[in-house]
Amino acid sequence: MYVILVYDVKQQRVGKLLKLCRRYLHWIQNSVFEGEISDVKLQELLLQAASFLDKEEDSILLFKSRTEQWLEKQVWGRERSPLGSFL
Amino acid sequence: MYVILVYDVKQQRVGKLLKLCRRYLHWIQNSVFEGEISDVKLQELLLQAASFLDKEEDSILLFKSRTEQWLEKQVWGRERSPLGSFL
Repeated sequence: MYVILVYDVKQQRVGKLLKLCRRYLHWIQNSVFEGEISDVKLQELLLQAASFLDKEEDSILLFKSRTEQWLEKQVWGRERSPLGSFL
Repeated sequence: MYVILVYDVKQQRVGKLLKLCRRYLHWIQNSVFEGEISDVKLQELLLQAASFLDKEEDSILLFKSRTEQWLEKQVWGRERSPLGSFL
């Protein structure tokens, strides 16, 4: 499946989470990752994240779609990472 | 259509952008909004944002889907705003 992952975590844990997410997904903007991932791999990512994140302070938001085709992406402004279409 | 909007803008412009986005979409996490919006209204939002954002420094990332049904949302950790499903 295709996922968009947006994290909101305390500064001191950002580096570790970035490194972890990069092993599974593509970084597209500041705190946003996307990519094709299996359910098993996604659970693996979340389990590892849970081992060092603080459930009371940090959060990870996931949007899952069966296919990337169902989503159109656009970027306004500064481009961080190449994407399909631009405004 | 249904959109997810993620912004990455300089601190001094965050307040103004938050206020603007709230007039069109629902806030779900730190820099993330979602909601049903027409193409016209979305262009209106972006035009207004463009009037005070800096295209070299700030960015707005949009994911558009014809329907919200195609996306499953999940939150890990701290809940900021009510969502349909949780890990």
